[in-house]
Amino acid sequence: MSNQEPSAEFEPQITARLLVTCADRPGIVNAISNFLYSHGANITTLDQHSTDPTGGTYFSRIEFQLPHSDLPAPVLERSFQRAVGDDYEMQWKFSYASKTKKTAIFVSKYDHALLELLWRWSRGELPTEITMVVSNHPDLEEAADRFGLPFHHVPVDAENKQEAEAEMLQLLEGKADLIVLARYMQILTGDFVDRYQHQIINIHHSFLPAFVGAAPYRKAKRRGVKLIGATAHYVTEELDGGPIIEQDVIRVSHRESVDDLKALGATVERNVVARAVKWHLEDRIIVHGNRTVVFV
Amino acid sequence: MSNQEPSAEFEPQITARLLVTCADRPGIVNAISNFLYSHGANITTLDQHSTDPTGGTYFSRIEFQLPHSDLPAPVLERSFQRAVGDDYEMQWKFSYASKTKKTAIFVSKYDHALLELLWRWSRGELPTEITMVVSNHPDLEEAADRFGLPFHHVPVDAENKQEAEAEMLQLLEGKADLIVLARYMQILTGDFVDRYQHQIINIHHSFLPAFVGAAPYRKAKRRGVKLIGATAHYVTEELDGGPIIEQDVIRVSHRESVDDLKALGATVERNVVARAVKWHLEDRIIVHGNRTVVFV
Amino acid sequence: MSNQEPSAEFEPQITARLLVTCADRPGIVNAISNFLYSHGANITTLDQHSTDPTGGTYFSRIEFQLPHSDLPAPVLERSFQRAVGDDYEMQWKFSYASKTKKTAIFVSKYDHALLELLWRWSRGELPTEITMVVSNHPDLEEAADRFGLPFHHVPVDAENKQEAEAEMLQLLEGKADLIVLARYMQILTGDFVDRYQHQIINIHHSFLPAFVGAAPYRKAKRRGVKLIGATAHYVTEELDGGPIIEQDVIRVSHRESVDDLKALGATVERNVVARAVKWHLEDRIIVHGNRTVVFV
Amino acid sequence: MSNQEPSAEFEPQITARLLVTCADRPGIVNAISNFLYSHGANITTLDQHSTDPTGGTYFSRIEFQLPHSDLPAPVLERSFQRAVGDDYEMQWKFSYASKTKKTAIFVSKYDHALLELLWRWSRGELPTEITMVVSNHPDLEEAADRFGLPFHHVPVDAENKQEAEAEMLQLLEGKADLIVLARYMQILTGDFVDRYQHQIINIHHSFLPAFVGAAPYRKAKRRGVKLIGATAHYVTEELDGGPIIEQDVIRVSHRESVDDLKALGATVERNVVARAVKWHLEDRIIVHGNRTVVFV
Repeated sequence: MSNQEPSAEFEPQITARLLVTCADRPGIVNAISNFLYSHGANITTLDQHSTDPTGGTYFSRIEFQLPHSDLPAPVLERSFQRAVGDDYEMQWKFSYASKTKKTAIFVSKYDHALLELLWRWSRGELPTEITMVVSNHPDLEEAADRFGLPFHHVPVDAENKQEAEAEMLQLLEGKADLIVLARYMQILTGDFVDRYQHQIINIHHSFLPAFVGAAPYRKAKRRGVKLIGATAHYVTEELDGGPIIEQDVIRVSHRESVDDLKALGATVERNVVARAVKWHLEDRIIVHGNRTVVFV
Repeated sequence: MSNQEPSAEFEPQITARLLVTCADRPGIVNAISNFLYSHGANITTLDQHSTDPTGGTYFSRIEFQLPHSDLPAPVLERSFQRAVGDDYEMQWKFSYASKTKKTAIFVSKYDHALLELLWRWSRGELPTEITMVVSNHPDLEEAADRFGLPFHHVPVDAENKQEAEAEMLQLLEGKADLIVLARYMQILTGDFVDRYQHQIINIHHSFLPAFVGAAPYRKAKRRGVKLIGATAHYVTEELDGGPIIEQDVIRVSHRESVDDLKALGATVERNVVARAVKWHLEDRIIVHGNRTVVFV
Repeated sequence: MSNQEPSAEFEPQITARLLVTCADRPGIVNAISNFLYSHGANITTLDQHSTDPTGGTYFSRIEFQLPHSDLPAPVLERSFQRAVGDDYEMQWKFSYASKTKKTAIFVSKYDHALLELLWRWSRGELPTEITMVVSNHPDLEEAADRFGLPFHHVPVDAENKQEAEAEMLQLLEGKADLIVLARYMQILTGDFVDRYQHQIINIHHSFLPAFVGAAPYRKAKRRGVKLIGATAHYVTEELDGGPIIEQDVIRVSHRESVDDLKALGATVERNVVARAVKWHLEDRIIVHGNRTVVFV
Repeated sequence: MSNQEPSAEFEPQITARLLVTCADRPGIVNAISNFLYSHGANITTLDQHSTDPTGGTYFSRIEFQLPHSDLPAPVLERSFQRAVGDDYEMQWKFSYASKTKKTAIFVSKYDHALLELLWRWSRGELPTEITMVVSNHPDLEEAADRFGLPFHHVPVDAENKQEAEAEMLQLLEGKADLIVLARYMQILTGDFVDRYQHQIINIHHSFLPAFVGAAPYRKAKRRGVKLIGATAHYVTEELDGGPIIEQDVIRVSHRESVDDLKALGATVERNVVARAVKWHLEDRIIVHGNRTVVFV
């Protein structure tokens, strides 16, 4: 135990989380729990997953209380690296519930995903500070206003994409730990995506089979699908190909018109994106290659 | 009313069904119901669907009782064509519950879809006579035996496909109003499919996104999908591209192994194929272009 | 065909609906479709249900276009009664899409059901005019304001219930074809309910098994249920015992806290009440005794 | 490390599981993982749950490999009690995948739950040895025969209940770690239930609202419910009131007859009981008071 003054960041009963990924071998849980125990932490939730009984990859999410800690976060983290991380060649990340994540929401013209997020947020279901709504169209300014949020209209076209993204990046500077593409209909460049790796969540419709290109609901209607779905995923350079966070579907039949399908699709999208954002904010998601481990 | 002797086919209280497709215009329901009423039929269920309020296509399924009919089926049907069908340029089909449909089930090595169908059938849930189980492997003979069903082993390879199908067609002659591919892993030729247009139901796995080729569950695992599904469809020449009858999904997470995914997929497939077969047997499905209208 | 001037109510291409309940016997469909055809109506949707092949009750919902009608609605309806209704001793009701139904929403303090309805309404998904929000608490005035709706605060306590309901009835006069109890926590008197028979929709939580009395989510948590549900029903004098319109559930586990269960329950309630209200507004529901026939 | 000869029970790569319940306090994970690590175990799965961040109850399920263990199971377990269990006043239970659990299935006349279990078992999905089928009726003997299982017909009536149960207990002696009531329509006495505490799983239908007494599907039809469900639970003396393991529902409408509802209910029951049994066999369920923690 150290004699240093308690850090401002550590109050009695700090809730913290640790996400870990490493090659699986005996002793990992033991090493982590020893470390936390010796620093006075009380583990309240521990989820782990191994891809294989032997020779697989180990993932873990640990939520713990630091009741009387006298270590500032950076010291704790350096200590963890030395005591555990180095030995197991871990990728790890601590986060602290007291450090509220900041979220920016990108939209175009559809409001359903935006409003669902703002609603749940206003009801205390999403532990985040929403810092801004950014859009390539002016239409949803009033929706942002209603919730007292800054709205930034950044038009995007074929010519100005780079300048537009530069403007966005400036707006986001220090104000976004998470970007939600809540039906934002522009493709972000690889440069933009790289800046926010695994920090951009997108929602899009899904069908069985898939319908690519424009007017997917029209195609789904024409094909007579019986399920309409939505997929939330992290954005990578591969369009709609990033790690899947959550998916859901709703039943439809020949009775629904194309407009009905769109309305039902919007309902699924709302629920799916809200769950994905919640899980991200609660540090429940580990990205591994092109897939996710979600501890719910 | 006719003076002919009652046909053997018409007992008091015959349950019959009429499926109709035609260009939509005023008066169709009226014409059909007039015809049925004037022949003593009591409509017990009437479902209809128009693709558009004006200028669309009209679909209908009518279930009715023929309590004191004195018309043999062929006479009734010719009379319907003259009185209604010609005028509206209808595609129509009568069927009679007393004429039990015959079903042949094709399998390879997996038994789950086969056994689900046999079970439900043995419990009276599927109104059909199952006439045979056909397989390109000998493995499931015992399963067929247990239910007292003839089992035909017809090996298929690259060289003998045509002869094999010829043998199958001979076995099926007069014994199959429906063929269910219950995880039958061979592709049928266009010739075979043409003989049984909209009479062959296939079941296959479905994922969001789609995974083509071999080892789909392995690919789904690698991609981290959150839903595993199944699609039942009529077989057309386009592989897995025929009219969709039914779809369903089940939730999965990172916890399931590839084997778990297969087992869960099998459960979805069982339920989906059983529903599709039931609806076909109850004349609930109208195929229109490459999609279905299913009246459930 | 009549020589009267066309009624103001009938424009070219009026969409109208007819709901019918009567004892089942041969000829009903025929009689109705004859009547509609002879008055120039084009049936676009016809759903019907018989409780039994013989001797049951017949229900039907018919949607039709009146393209060139020259009959005012009251004349059409009297004519229907004479030509069809009398003969079959029908209960029937015509409604016209051009006559928008008026809806009043009752709330207490929870906003989730209210906001879901206002949202879907503002997106054009609920074909109604929302005339007011009534509440026994002042809390949700701002929510009503945001959507430009009158908000009436009518406090209710043990002493003033009758006066309060009298005030509400006055507010509702001519302004409510439907009352939605969107988490309105007061019990309406039998007198009030009688005035709006099958016009008041309530939403409440549902569990397997049921938990009566206060703090149901706490009880559900203690009992370890694996499903949390919601039921929308028409209000009758029997508390929570009226005809069920729609139900749904969501999966939960030991991981959810009581607060989590409440949030999940709110999501189910939102979806269930929105579907029930939509179906009511589209005249899809027939009440029969203490149950509903819902044509979706 | 001990110098004893390796126990017959411990082969290289033994899969074992540990279930733990105790009052939550800091250090538990650490103590357990220290113990397992020091005995050469590699933890492959660790799930835990605390009912409250402070002062709650702690539950954990740990799956681990004992690759080179030289300790016989009883020694390991005594050692665990001394090193960890005593200190934390734990309830704990080790189990070993190599010690296959034995399962007896009780049935009456319905075969759907029985056949689903036998099927999944024959496909390797249920890790158990099924030792017998016991029934108060002779009807399902053939079903047991087909799978090569002993069938014991033990008639039960009002007079002979005690003798019948005595006979059953004798049959079960040493042959049942789990008893599944797969639609067994007799109520077991408290004495019988006490012998197999949390080792008897029952499946029954569930509705919203609940319908008690005979003919529940008829009542559900009359009430017009929109969901039909099933609940699997451990049997306690309180009829149908034991800890819930799993629940599920299926949508229904006015279209389904009472027989249809029964068939759909049977399908839900099959899936629910199969999941509950699987989870029990994989030691995923901890009973706490009258509820379960299920680590899936």
